[in-house]
Amino acid sequence: MTVAALLDRAKAQGVMIATAESCTGGMVAAALTDIPGSSAVVERGFVTYTNTAKQQMVEVRAETLAAHGAVSEQVAGEMAEGALRNSDAQLTVSVTGIAGPGGSEFKPEGRVCFGLAVEGAPTRTETVDFGALGREKVRQAARDHALELLSQGLFTIA
Amino acid sequence: MTVAALLDRAKAQGVMIATAESCTGGMVAAALTDIPGSSAVVERGFVTYTNTAKQQMVEVRAETLAAHGAVSEQVAGEMAEGALRNSDAQLTVSVTGIAGPGGSEFKPEGRVCFGLAVEGAPTRTETVDFGALGREKVRQAARDHALELLSQGLFTIA
Repeated sequence: MTVAALLDRAKAQGVMIATAESCTGGMVAAALTDIPGSSAVVERGFVTYTNTAKQQMVEVRAETLAAHGAVSEQVAGEMAEGALRNSDAQLTVSVTGIAGPGGSEFKPEGRVCFGLAVEGAPTRTETVDFGALGREKVRQAARDHALELLSQGLFTIA
Repeated sequence: MTVAALLDRAKAQGVMIATAESCTGGMVAAALTDIPGSSAVVERGFVTYTNTAKQQMVEVRAETLAAHGAVSEQVAGEMAEGALRNSDAQLTVSVTGIAGPGGSEFKPEGRVCFGLAVEGAPTRTETVDFGALGREKVRQAARDHALELLSQGLFTIA
């Protein structure tokens, strides 16, 4: 589904979207708002680049960060759910990963965790190892995957 | 100054940066986080696309929105100051404008208002009429101008 089609569908369903981004740093929100008329669908975006921002903006728990690290499905899930609680959106996606160069937290470059939260449904999380494609390509791949997850999320609401 | 040079300088000065974006929808934060090592400088970003998000995330006042509209130097100033208060950053930039297509609020397509807030200094605001360049070019021009303002802001701190 193109981003324009995603926005059309969300608009037709009366669904507002919010994002919570770490490694993509706003790229998902930027892709959504590239489309004219996106203001009917995009509610807000949280760029939670630091751990403090993750805790303050979308209520990621310090214990979760300490136990699993920022790049984990547990944190991705809390980010997506926190974005839902702290916005007027009904559908949220989160992205936290290692864009590189190099790995960190004993995790490989290119590993990205995602969360998808829908009002009234269980939160979905997943990990994709995009590999050491370089920072730019990992970020683009993560952005595109987050947009695909939003499309899938809309179908679960329909 | 390139974005990489901006980040190097901020890092050397021990300055953290936050963004508050409406019409650019995350593009400023995305540009900053394109650079490896940006996590030492980028604290967080607020994508305040709706008026509700502007009020809830960065404390723009309802009276200011009602009196001046979302695309105004008054709102841009409050966005930048709200981003400063609601983050651990010492330097913030805000962007609110009419990317188009078409004007709104009786304001022309391509008009963008910016705010620049620095801890302990007066907040600066300005309006740039980029003209009806089309949505993509207005957004890119607004992003680049916001990055330039951040560079200027760093010099006022030094």
